[in-house]
Amino acid sequence: MGEFELIAAINQDQPQREDTSVGPGDDAAVVAAPDGRVVVSVDMLVDGVHFRSDWANGEQIGRRAALAAMADIAAMGAAPTSLVVAVSAPGTTPTDLLLGIAKGLREAAVEAGAAVVGGDTTRSETLTISVTVLGDLRGAPPVRRSGARPGDEVAVTGRLGWAAAGLTILSRGFRSPAALVNAYRVPEPPLSAGITAAASGATSMIDVSDGLLADLGHIAEASGVSINIRRAALDVNPRLVEVASALGKDPMEWVLSGGDDHPLVATFPHGASLPPGWQPIGTVGVAGDDGPTVTVDGSRHEGPGGWDHFR
Amino acid sequence: MGEFELIAAINQDQPQREDTSVGPGDDAAVVAAPDGRVVVSVDMLVDGVHFRSDWANGEQIGRRAALAAMADIAAMGAAPTSLVVAVSAPGTTPTDLLLGIAKGLREAAVEAGAAVVGGDTTRSETLTISVTVLGDLRGAPPVRRSGARPGDEVAVTGRLGWAAAGLTILSRGFRSPAALVNAYRVPEPPLSAGITAAASGATSMIDVSDGLLADLGHIAEASGVSINIRRAALDVNPRLVEVASALGKDPMEWVLSGGDDHPLVATFPHGASLPPGWQPIGTVGVAGDDGPTVTVDGSRHEGPGGWDHFR
Repeated sequence: MGEFELIAAINQDQPQREDTSVGPGDDAAVVAAPDGRVVVSVDMLVDGVHFRSDWANGEQIGRRAALAAMADIAAMGAAPTSLVVAVSAPGTTPTDLLLGIAKGLREAAVEAGAAVVGGDTTRSETLTISVTVLGDLRGAPPVRRSGARPGDEVAVTGRLGWAAAGLTILSRGFRSPAALVNAYRVPEPPLSAGITAAASGATSMIDVSDGLLADLGHIAEASGVSINIRRAALDVNPRLVEVASALGKDPMEWVLSGGDDHPLVATFPHGASLPPGWQPIGTVGVAGDDGPTVTVDGSRHEGPGGWDHFR
Repeated sequence: MGEFELIAAINQDQPQREDTSVGPGDDAAVVAAPDGRVVVSVDMLVDGVHFRSDWANGEQIGRRAALAAMADIAAMGAAPTSLVVAVSAPGTTPTDLLLGIAKGLREAAVEAGAAVVGGDTTRSETLTISVTVLGDLRGAPPVRRSGARPGDEVAVTGRLGWAAAGLTILSRGFRSPAALVNAYRVPEPPLSAGITAAASGATSMIDVSDGLLADLGHIAEASGVSINIRRAALDVNPRLVEVASALGKDPMEWVLSGGDDHPLVATFPHGASLPPGWQPIGTVGVAGDDGPTVTVDGSRHEGPGGWDHFR
């Protein structure tokens, strides 16, 4: 299947939103931006780095790419509306894999209320997917990384550590438990929770892609604050405990440092009632003499995925 | 330089438009979409396919990526406003090359009245650049590929065949004439001509990236018409004639089939006065029994880059 046939096959069955005036197949798409602003973000996923085409099928890879990218839009407090996708792939890539990726992208977009409105395909020695997502703030101000204030409460919603556990399992050559392996293959970011958090007064927000401590580090840096997390407040799913014990790992490391689940972590004013599904895990404090920090139970975390690792 | 330092270095000196409320450095950017719609398109460029890092420096590669992507927005009759860029690169890529690419992207964007508002960087075995451009139609309807009507005039603005000549020169191991080699390294798409064409009533438009005949084929297909080009109406720059003669090539092949210059080709109602810089090159007719076609002086073009090659 040549480049043009592939594009035609992909474009053919892309359901579109009613407010999109030009969908796929032209030089560019024209989509609605009803409040006069548009939120935009891009994520690039590379075979062997962000996914492995021998560990997941095309549909899973496509879903993952779409969901990871849409999580960035959710983290601003916006709803994803449109995706534009570029895929480069070796000439030897099975057509089924490419069509599967397109299907996964399409379905994940539609389930989130969005649509794939355009794309580009090209040859490359490395299978690479770039997903740009547009989003709608529906009149609300964006929730930035820089708004956390001393006294704020830190809360999280979504899975923590599942994908990291799944990756460890796959790396050891195992394929189960399915719940964890599938969590690595296809994340379940709580996309609509970002809008609810914004409406509930979230002062800052980020989606966890580098790891909880690392991403809280981005908030601490941008807001000029220090953040302390309470270990006891973090849910460690029993499945994680079980697998960690079998593999000789510490499940808390997956929770604190694992990326790829794309939960949302946000700060809320002290005393605010958190929206459903959000769990308080820590507090925001004044930055000390050594600048913004992220601590766990008052101490720097020394693990490999700790925040210092990313500075 | 690690991923985070690189992003910081790139983000630091990105000039922003006044109407951009959130620029680089957050989960997503928030940009203005003043007329309630946004035009969006993505282009992916791969080392060894769309450019060669041994044939151009980083700044040239970045400029090329930005200009090629912005040409798609111009071809809708819109003005580019914002770029989001994803770059994946091998760990051995010189930092200077990456910073050069960022500089080229930034400068080309700013010169076109746009700005780089966000991005992603990641590891890969293949240097890959994806550029998504947002554009503003300023209240005008988009100019699509599907609007050409029998009787319309076909016109072009911008260079044809220069980049193809430059590529041939570089492929043969030469480095001059500089004007042609540089045309391949950095195209000069007539970005503002798209808006003028739209205002002058252009019925369809496309930017030439696959070759004049191939891209007119996209218009013919989408509009359900046939298009005939007059060879004598096509300017062949004397530099092309000279180099073609030295290399034993036919310069008209470069003009008809060369991509990468990103001129704009559009159709206008018969008798409309063309905007400055647009040159009439052919006419639109009714599609025959064998469907939409593109002909040159009434005949199918048999060259390797002819339209049939792309069907």
